[in-house]
Amino acid sequence: MRLRHKPWAKEKLEQHPQYVVAEPENLKGKWHEAFEKDQPLHIEVGTGKGQFVTGMAKANPDINYIGIELYDSVIVAALDRLIEADLPNLKLLNVNAAELDKYFTKNDVDRIYLNFSDPWPKTRHEKRRLTYKDFLKLYENILVDGGEIHFKTDNQGLFEYSLMSFSAYGLLLKYVSLDFHKSGYEGNIMTEYEQKFSERGQRIYRCEVKYQN
Amino acid sequence: MRLRHKPWAKEKLEQHPQYVVAEPENLKGKWHEAFEKDQPLHIEVGTGKGQFVTGMAKANPDINYIGIELYDSVIVAALDRLIEADLPNLKLLNVNAAELDKYFTKNDVDRIYLNFSDPWPKTRHEKRRLTYKDFLKLYENILVDGGEIHFKTDNQGLFEYSLMSFSAYGLLLKYVSLDFHKSGYEGNIMTEYEQKFSERGQRIYRCEVKYQN
Ligand SMILES: C[S@@+](CC[C@H](N)C(=O)[O-])C[C@H]1O[C@@H](n2cnc3c(N)ncnc32)[C@H](O)[C@@H]1O
Ligand SMILES: C[S@@+](CC[C@H](N)C(=O)[O-])C[C@H]1O[C@@H](n2cnc3c(N)ncnc32)[C@H](O)[C@@H]1O
Repeated sequence: MRLRHKPWAKEKLEQHPQYVVAEPENLKGKWHEAFEKDQPLHIEVGTGKGQFVTGMAKANPDINYIGIELYDSVIVAALDRLIEADLPNLKLLNVNAAELDKYFTKNDVDRIYLNFSDPWPKTRHEKRRLTYKDFLKLYENILVDGGEIHFKTDNQGLFEYSLMSFSAYGLLLKYVSLDFHKSGYEGNIMTEYEQKFSERGQRIYRCEVKYQN
Repeated sequence: MRLRHKPWAKEKLEQHPQYVVAEPENLKGKWHEAFEKDQPLHIEVGTGKGQFVTGMAKANPDINYIGIELYDSVIVAALDRLIEADLPNLKLLNVNAAELDKYFTKNDVDRIYLNFSDPWPKTRHEKRRLTYKDFLKLYENILVDGGEIHFKTDNQGLFEYSLMSFSAYGLLLKYVSLDFHKSGYEGNIMTEYEQKFSERGQRIYRCEVKYQN
């Protein structure tokens, strides 16, 4: 994600509290209060400019979504999309995924999406990968029993690593595609990165794993 | 594997009992008696013409190998290689892998190799795939605790299926490569199929899984 410093970004986020959750720690254990309807909650971690999560929220009005992104300068682009689409079942959250348990508690979340997460290819950066075991523990602590992670990436090394990390953690591999765009899967919603990389002819990898509580 | 009927094949196998085990049920629980040295035993299931297992036996004199192949018309080619190389740590077995437990018992085998196994792409043939759960059970019943399966294939669908089947069975994914020939792995020994498919530019997939007894 190319980062340009946007000094106005933080202010713009604050001006739209109906879309960008202002005090997320106050919603811990009662996220349904943030939404019109009390229905399952799916979150995307590292949502970028929000194309995926906005598309999902449009396509699935019976699910609540939260797009989580660390950088205000990036998530403002997601905010623009959301203002445009004005969806009652989508909120944005400008926080660090490493602190998910500050904002969510056990059973708050039904599914987690990870899309084109930063690969951190160097071994010494393993702990930063969003599929590192500490993150899998964090996700377990906020998901329902039997909750799922749905993961897409173009990065072969990250995908290989993640399959091993999921297995070592005891997650069940429910679905895997090693060339997702040729798999015949229907209803896929592309992320910005997915669109860019698949236009260059790169393979997309995708899997679904399930906590076996 | 192209099958030509070779009426002389069975006879030729019988003429070389030092290489092709004649009464394997008699060696159940005491396979070391078939070999010069009492050392770990690795078997390849669906060994074809034997290029891999012969190469492995040459490269690793401190391991005993058995190449298992259903068709006499195919395994004769492996016999020719073995006669040529005259290896004390390699035997051939002309039996059906579905009956492995007739010839081997718990702890007989330290590792199982599956290379370019027939993909059986139709769902109704799932049970024939050598990574179907009934086969994983069969392997468990002849392997040591913590025994491993090492699997290579060019077939994307079979590899995806196998990763899910391994996971559902509770096996630990220790290693996975989604483009093995570009992985930097050293000391790979190619099978006939591997050579053919990689020359055509196809990706090779490889994984190692471990029983967690
Ligand atoms: C490579 S981009 C992919 C963006 C989008 N998911 C897509 O597929 O187009 C990864 C995004 O994850 C965000 N990210 C990385 N680590 C994060 C963390 N710890 N918490 C929240 N967001 C994070 C980055 O800021 C970046 O926007
Ligand atoms: C596609 S070939 C691959 C041969 C070799 N492993 C290679 O990689 O070049 C699969 C082989 O497995 C053998 N095979 C299939 N099912 C088998 C079974 N149930 N028991 C023993 N061999 C089997 C076939 O006869 C065939 O020779």
